[in-house]
Amino acid sequence: MITTNALSPKEQREVFRNNLDTKSTSGMCDGFVQANLVILPKEYAFDFLLFAHRNPKPCALVDVMEAGVVKPNIADADIRTDLQKYNIYKDGKFVEEVNDITSYWRDDFVTFLIGCSFTFERALNEAGIEMLHQKMDKTVSMYVTNIECDPAGVFHGPTVVSMRPVRKESLVKSVEVTAKYPHTHGTPLHIGDPSVIGITDITKPDFGDFVPYDEDKYEPVFWACGVTPQAVALKSKPSIMISHVPGHMFISDQKEIL
Amino acid sequence: MITTNALSPKEQREVFRNNLDTKSTSGMCDGFVQANLVILPKEYAFDFLLFAHRNPKPCALVDVMEAGVVKPNIADADIRTDLQKYNIYKDGKFVEEVNDITSYWRDDFVTFLIGCSFTFERALNEAGIEMLHQKMDKTVSMYVTNIECDPAGVFHGPTVVSMRPVRKESLVKSVEVTAKYPHTHGTPLHIGDPSVIGITDITKPDFGDFVPYDEDKYEPVFWACGVTPQAVALKSKPSIMISHVPGHMFISDQKEIL
Repeated sequence: MITTNALSPKEQREVFRNNLDTKSTSGMCDGFVQANLVILPKEYAFDFLLFAHRNPKPCALVDVMEAGVVKPNIADADIRTDLQKYNIYKDGKFVEEVNDITSYWRDDFVTFLIGCSFTFERALNEAGIEMLHQKMDKTVSMYVTNIECDPAGVFHGPTVVSMRPVRKESLVKSVEVTAKYPHTHGTPLHIGDPSVIGITDITKPDFGDFVPYDEDKYEPVFWACGVTPQAVALKSKPSIMISHVPGHMFISDQKEIL
Repeated sequence: MITTNALSPKEQREVFRNNLDTKSTSGMCDGFVQANLVILPKEYAFDFLLFAHRNPKPCALVDVMEAGVVKPNIADADIRTDLQKYNIYKDGKFVEEVNDITSYWRDDFVTFLIGCSFTFERALNEAGIEMLHQKMDKTVSMYVTNIECDPAGVFHGPTVVSMRPVRKESLVKSVEVTAKYPHTHGTPLHIGDPSVIGITDITKPDFGDFVPYDEDKYEPVFWACGVTPQAVALKSKPSIMISHVPGHMFISDQKEIL
């Protein structure tokens, strides 16, 4: 299910910089850490960093760049140009999708790179736990839960989870494998009955696609999702916020440790 | 070696609030987390939180309180009155020692509570690794090393370590035991030859007392020390900074997990 890609992260980012590719980064540059992007003005930065610190499962920081810094610590890259596409939000509302944020850039912008599930999905696959959504070429199912994040300053809101059906005989293994990745969401938040975490209809995810599974053989397993900090940040209506377009992550030079 | 104390953390803090005790908090309210205190104006808070995030061994955060908040999350306390004594620094220079910081308090003050070694010392003792400095009733030896912290914003500087002599046959165990306490410094930074981390004379610690030991039976073991963030913060000469007086920690209501 895992596609490989002949390009190095640096080469792949150059493709993005020149706007020559629009596919999801899932499976690209296999073995390198990919990350969710959140850019906020410095006035929100302390609260957001504290929010991430208090909620490490949904908001596992893989990099934070001081105000005005455009080169990540984990990649020889320019954060303004080296993602495929960006979403611009003003006062909590979507404004436009762009390929480059150079014209939006300000010296008081602080960049947060947040761990995504691609790393642990690779580990689950290698442990023999097949990712059904990859097999069906769908986006993973995501749900807003009734699990409130620990608030920080202006930021508060519910945890968003991603769901992967896991064979009943592999449930324990799915916990064991992801326990090794505390920096990319770690162990699941919940196994089984979706109503326990406030999900009323499993067939209707809030984001992504529903991935059907055989209930006799599989249980749904829910992990904290990197969409959480983005949803929480928007809820506080920051004057401006920039994120990646979902599925189109930042590709770093940092090797995953499996 | 561990003294016990009949008072609850709340009762003990009340003793401090009424300035009725001046002893070190070492051994007080056994079983409850104690913490180093750093208070900074909000303008420094993002950089300091990022510094702590990047340097979790010396700066293990046990609590962070938003600007103006005086009640910690981990204790039913008032941070302005419930420590024994405080050091006031202005522009990086010591100004005075006070029993109460109510007159200094400002609504833009952000409070950081940082893990201290009392928790893992208790665990080491319970694992049969005797703390010589406790036996000799001395303050643990602390040294400035040549290990630079990962800088963040205005904050940068070397790691300060605390040293405990450990019997040669217990060196591995000392790593194993402290590995269980990632939130209070975790595993040692170094075992043995002090010159490797830039310590030229083990008998002359930069802070605390030298604790003599038999070199045939013991090796020095060095752990990252909670003095580090305080030393680093002062180096950047913040307009004002408030800390606990060394040895006189904040006592929380949170149980240590051994």
